[in-house]
Amino acid sequence: MCLLTEENRGVDLTSTPEWRRLLALGTPPPLRELFASDPDRARRYRFGCADLTVDLSKNWLTDDILRALVDVADASALSERRTAMFAGERINSTEDRAVLHVALRLPRASSLIVDGHDVVPDIHRVLDRMSAFADAVRDGTHLGHTGKPIEVVVNIGIGGSDLGPAMVYDALHRFADGPRCRFVSNVDGADIAGALAGLDPETTLFVVCSKTFTTIETLTNARTARDWLVGRLGDDQAVSRHFVAVSTDAAAVGAFGIDPQNMFGFWDWVGGRYSVDSAVGLSVMLAIGPARFGQFLSGFHSVDKDFVSVPHAQNAAVVMALLGMWYSNVHGAQTKAVLPYSHNLRRFPAYLQQLDMESNGKTVGLDGRAVATTTGPVVWGEPGTNGQHAFYQLLHQGSWLIPCDFIGFARPGAGPQHHHDLLMSNLFAQAEALAFGRTPAEVAAEGVPEQQIDHRVFLGNRPSTMILADELSPKVLGELIALYEHIVFVQGAIWGINPFDQWGVELGKVLANRITPELVDASAVPAHDPSTNALIAWYRARRSG
Amino acid sequence: MCLLTEENRGVDLTSTPEWRRLLALGTPPPLRELFASDPDRARRYRFGCADLTVDLSKNWLTDDILRALVDVADASALSERRTAMFAGERINSTEDRAVLHVALRLPRASSLIVDGHDVVPDIHRVLDRMSAFADAVRDGTHLGHTGKPIEVVVNIGIGGSDLGPAMVYDALHRFADGPRCRFVSNVDGADIAGALAGLDPETTLFVVCSKTFTTIETLTNARTARDWLVGRLGDDQAVSRHFVAVSTDAAAVGAFGIDPQNMFGFWDWVGGRYSVDSAVGLSVMLAIGPARFGQFLSGFHSVDKDFVSVPHAQNAAVVMALLGMWYSNVHGAQTKAVLPYSHNLRRFPAYLQQLDMESNGKTVGLDGRAVATTTGPVVWGEPGTNGQHAFYQLLHQGSWLIPCDFIGFARPGAGPQHHHDLLMSNLFAQAEALAFGRTPAEVAAEGVPEQQIDHRVFLGNRPSTMILADELSPKVLGELIALYEHIVFVQGAIWGINPFDQWGVELGKVLANRITPELVDASAVPAHDPSTNALIAWYRARRSG
Repeated sequence: MCLLTEENRGVDLTSTPEWRRLLALGTPPPLRELFASDPDRARRYRFGCADLTVDLSKNWLTDDILRALVDVADASALSERRTAMFAGERINSTEDRAVLHVALRLPRASSLIVDGHDVVPDIHRVLDRMSAFADAVRDGTHLGHTGKPIEVVVNIGIGGSDLGPAMVYDALHRFADGPRCRFVSNVDGADIAGALAGLDPETTLFVVCSKTFTTIETLTNARTARDWLVGRLGDDQAVSRHFVAVSTDAAAVGAFGIDPQNMFGFWDWVGGRYSVDSAVGLSVMLAIGPARFGQFLSGFHSVDKDFVSVPHAQNAAVVMALLGMWYSNVHGAQTKAVLPYSHNLRRFPAYLQQLDMESNGKTVGLDGRAVATTTGPVVWGEPGTNGQHAFYQLLHQGSWLIPCDFIGFARPGAGPQHHHDLLMSNLFAQAEALAFGRTPAEVAAEGVPEQQIDHRVFLGNRPSTMILADELSPKVLGELIALYEHIVFVQGAIWGINPFDQWGVELGKVLANRITPELVDASAVPAHDPSTNALIAWYRARRSG
Repeated sequence: MCLLTEENRGVDLTSTPEWRRLLALGTPPPLRELFASDPDRARRYRFGCADLTVDLSKNWLTDDILRALVDVADASALSERRTAMFAGERINSTEDRAVLHVALRLPRASSLIVDGHDVVPDIHRVLDRMSAFADAVRDGTHLGHTGKPIEVVVNIGIGGSDLGPAMVYDALHRFADGPRCRFVSNVDGADIAGALAGLDPETTLFVVCSKTFTTIETLTNARTARDWLVGRLGDDQAVSRHFVAVSTDAAAVGAFGIDPQNMFGFWDWVGGRYSVDSAVGLSVMLAIGPARFGQFLSGFHSVDKDFVSVPHAQNAAVVMALLGMWYSNVHGAQTKAVLPYSHNLRRFPAYLQQLDMESNGKTVGLDGRAVATTTGPVVWGEPGTNGQHAFYQLLHQGSWLIPCDFIGFARPGAGPQHHHDLLMSNLFAQAEALAFGRTPAEVAAEGVPEQQIDHRVFLGNRPSTMILADELSPKVLGELIALYEHIVFVQGAIWGINPFDQWGVELGKVLANRITPELVDASAVPAHDPSTNALIAWYRARRSG
């Protein structure tokens, strides 16, 4: 169900002739027929994007549909907005900011002028400071308060200040030759308690990531960490060797007790969910070193170049975005499954969940009117082969159209080769099964008992995309992230929304700030609806402490 | 989009007078109006279920709708099928099996006759063997091959043999006073390589969980673990002290090299996704001890008793199931978010994903005909407050109706009290924000600049359910799991499907078995569709080893 009201519709994508032509094409024949009549589609719909290979042939795609989709993109503001983003214009209009995560990975020799100022030297100045610090920690030049080297880094952040570095650290774990990392995000005290368990304060470094340095979860956890450190080492001065900050607000960082010299900055044109390639990646750089972090950035940049230069009909990010739009707006898909066949990418779906859903989970357009179509999907998934033993039943035989993105690598991240062969055979088999299914006649031909036949039929024709690369290297991971960043961008541009604000997180914060004192002060009179009042009373009656 | 075809419809729930009456009620007024006109609803729609408190008042519920929903349930096969399940009848008709996870938690003094045989003594015989073994490991009576006590348990399983014990171990971590546990599931070798890193074979016990003992991921990982152990300890005989099996197949267990004396059995009437309270929970029992495992089982049983005895209109599992059905079938919700405000429950959504999606992700009814309605939702979620900084934007302002289940506890699992107060204020605030939103007038009254007002409006009227308990104890966790088991059961019964088979996982396995040799044998000629053939060729050209 779309929650939009008819009365408040803004610019209407669906009223364009390009959209009507797309709709007129309807739904193509099933994938079985498409492949039978056009075996060449496997070759024709295989796209390259930097080091990635993207097989789109098991999507509901024909040359006519591809052309119609690209026409929709060409008739939209996509090209204009892309040019504006890369030029540093203030395309985040509701917050009056530029959007320049693409600048974060520009080579040192580039330049990008924003408001008369070249941001590239600023970016590399921070990268150089991060590198110098990372080298000092990694080679033992930077020691803890008692003179011991740093062995564990605890990253404290939430949202983009957690999901990005935590996902990348897991993904690139086999390249890590620096301190081990742990990640604390949740204000639930079980998170920091678990992270601190077994740690030695003398060898622990905390990286506190918060753009504004006011995020309540992060500051609460950082204070608890500081108390733990100071309590154990018995000296306030220890903070300066054991805490660094990633933030844009030097004053707030100083007020916390961290020397602003130990702050690594970024800028208001970097959104949290687009920040893993900024100083927010410091924990990752500490673990894998500055050189590999540089390769990671170069991967993003390779995809950026393809995104701006490859014609739309061959542009992987554009066509993937268009297919996603079409599945959502025309075919009613509310979700998209992301299924990495790589245990090291197990948190990639959670990372994309934020990237996509916080960007395009909106229904008000740039003009302040409700948009005419449904918007971003629920993104979800677990790594293969685990998901096969959990929810693939529904992917194959359930009620819903769920486009799937599969991700796999030619070479294993770790472990024996025969494990990897099994992993990859399962990857290819699942995409085949979804697309082609199994007919009643095929089931019957296997000698299945009559009363089971219907239950063992697979309708097939369930679309999926296969993203492949040689190995999950730092560069390839940067490419994967950038690919999805641009898919989200294209969809936002076509839908006419601003993917770079997040007003939808505001109200919950306001209400939580109102409720917190009501939970702890027995004399407060909660002034909410009867349900919320009753919940507060329930808690007060049981609260420990 | 529903993928069913009109031509193949079976028994049609939607053709009943009860369904038509439900439809005729339409959508109730928004929650703001419902609460304004009926403040008592907060009290009236608060349900108890064992130790759980369930506030359903922020759902699209009125007395008329509740009555109509219950009428649909009463007109369905629900009561009959529930009675049949608890009586041990073969309600898993496509596999001709009884469904008796509810027997697993029956007290010792009970009896339940299946095919003339009382299964309760069998169940307690296994529980007693598990307890004796767990005690022996925990008190150092069971030693490793070189005479050292067991310090780490590695559970090897996938699907229900992993998600259940892994989730419960995380959830009850603070009660763990036995060996630490690790969990290996993925055939990706990175999983077992990561799990074995840093382990001492002399103090490591492997629990290999596989109902049939043929699950390829589990057996592949178990063999790699065995090679690791034997290679390090230099003695085949070490296996007997370091490997135990949870399985129904003693012959297969023996063939692997595990003494069938070290096998803990279960029965064909326990489905994998319903098995955490069987011997599959052995790792958990090793960690928390038999007494707490008994409390865990008693929690399931408490909810079972409520489920069979409480009238439908006050029965939490029944009403939650009916609301979920209504949101899906009538209001088009394709997903359900599960949002535990408890870091220790962070894998609960993944656990429920399997429980629900593998059970009700089906469109063929018991009669072999396509069912008339859409069926089970995509279940997804992350713990609060993390999700607030990731995807809540879309929950509040996105296109889709996404019913949310919130879960919270009065007392913290760990960490300082003020962390827990913040956690709970956020929990209550999010449900309030979703339900009541913020109107343009309210935004304007806060002095928001004109051009931002539309972007900062929250439409509200987004339904959610609040599930509360005093603390996340073993008993309460058992109750939570049982509640969701029965929700899934009710929906399956009303939709007329069999929640206890999983034919939809079959085809992928068949195809993977066909592809595996084609990946490793350069002379094989892959005989699939052109896309799959090309993927296999791509892999062969790059395969290492």
